[in-house]
Amino acid sequence: MLPIPTKFCLVVGHGEGDQKLNAFDAALLDAGVGNMNLLRVSSVLPPKCVYEEVFKMPAGSLLPIAYGSLTSDVPGEIISAAIGVGIPEDPSSYGIIMEFSGFCKADEAALTVEKMVREAFAMRNLLLKEVKVKSVEHRVERCGSVIAACPLFYEVPCEGC
Amino acid sequence: MLPIPTKFCLVVGHGEGDQKLNAFDAALLDAGVGNMNLLRVSSVLPPKCVYEEVFKMPAGSLLPIAYGSLTSDVPGEIISAAIGVGIPEDPSSYGIIMEFSGFCKADEAALTVEKMVREAFAMRNLLLKEVKVKSVEHRVERCGSVIAACPLFYEVPCEGC
Amino acid sequence: MLPIPTKFCLVVGHGEGDQKLNAFDAALLDAGVGNMNLLRVSSVLPPKCVYEEVFKMPAGSLLPIAYGSLTSDVPGEIISAAIGVGIPEDPSSYGIIMEFSGFCKADEAALTVEKMVREAFAMRNLLLKEVKVKSVEHRVERCGSVIAACPLFYEVPCEGC
Repeated sequence: MLPIPTKFCLVVGHGEGDQKLNAFDAALLDAGVGNMNLLRVSSVLPPKCVYEEVFKMPAGSLLPIAYGSLTSDVPGEIISAAIGVGIPEDPSSYGIIMEFSGFCKADEAALTVEKMVREAFAMRNLLLKEVKVKSVEHRVERCGSVIAACPLFYEVPCEGC
Repeated sequence: MLPIPTKFCLVVGHGEGDQKLNAFDAALLDAGVGNMNLLRVSSVLPPKCVYEEVFKMPAGSLLPIAYGSLTSDVPGEIISAAIGVGIPEDPSSYGIIMEFSGFCKADEAALTVEKMVREAFAMRNLLLKEVKVKSVEHRVERCGSVIAACPLFYEVPCEGC
Repeated sequence: MLPIPTKFCLVVGHGEGDQKLNAFDAALLDAGVGNMNLLRVSSVLPPKCVYEEVFKMPAGSLLPIAYGSLTSDVPGEIISAAIGVGIPEDPSSYGIIMEFSGFCKADEAALTVEKMVREAFAMRNLLLKEVKVKSVEHRVERCGSVIAACPLFYEVPCEGC
């Protein structure tokens, strides 16, 4: 089977580009995952997955990641994305990751994603210990993008071991 | 290379939620894959992949999965999804997985997906032994979602081996 | 962690089908990746990834792939897709993969994707050695699809080793 991720963090980013994909790329770079091969997942925190402040993986890695993103080419528009991770009371249980994006302010996106995490826990009768949330907003200049993401990653084998 | 899946099954689910992503989450839970990290694939049955009645993998696993899904927030709307897996005559050949979703009844979705599998086999001059199909429908109350999926999975290593 | 791909190539395809997914399937077959399980990635060329003229992996493999695709059921419409891979001057650096699709001619799609690669390198202050580009166009008959893709793959273990 595919290896289950053992670490997670929360990252956000925003940026501008000529094409929508370049704007998305700028947001990825700003979030610190611009040199990764993102494998979008839908979106569970594996049991015993450990929170890390800093994301670090070798360039070109296949990176399982849950994210919300929005890209717009309407100057002046406010776009936001938020990511929420629900940590279960029972450390042997899995948790839930939710993402949201919309034409709103970052704090509104954050509130929405937190509600979504709470609803997902309630639906499962899982006890919630904590919700970690990060959000970001961007006022579009020409073509802008936002991303809020939860990379799920691994202990990197040290070279030469 | 990434390990090739050795097992498959067909699952369907439907549900309601506050946000579209929560409705999708409810459908995933109903389908029995709500605690997995879905990696959406496009969509081939590997040679010698074995059919299982029951899906089982550890929570948080990265799960390759082909699926059709539809989410709607228009009360009263009928939404459906179907998954079809074409099993080849030649057991050493690969098969084809097709998915469909639409604003129709489940049996119509099932007929459509079966035709799609037949067309994919004809396009390849592959002989078809059997088409396995599952479908689901849902009448939207407030915000509803359907999913019909083919998880591609693995023998789980027993703990302690 | 998931294994980092060590090989890449560029492929394009187009085709027709009854349903949009069948048209996409026909384009995949034409591109030579119709018997793979595509795992769409967003989209970095790993360091030291080697270019191959010919794509080859066992049927049913999970294949990391960056692609642009467009499907249309409007007869007479011209649809195009292009894939561009930026190779860095420094062979120990990663590169960038960009994809594009639109209602335009293939050469226009190719120009656009090359510009996107150049912008992505400029954004990173990375020196560009070369941009490899492939593009494809298709005039829709009934329901047509195009794909331009960069499969990221692996040395296949020889059987019996």
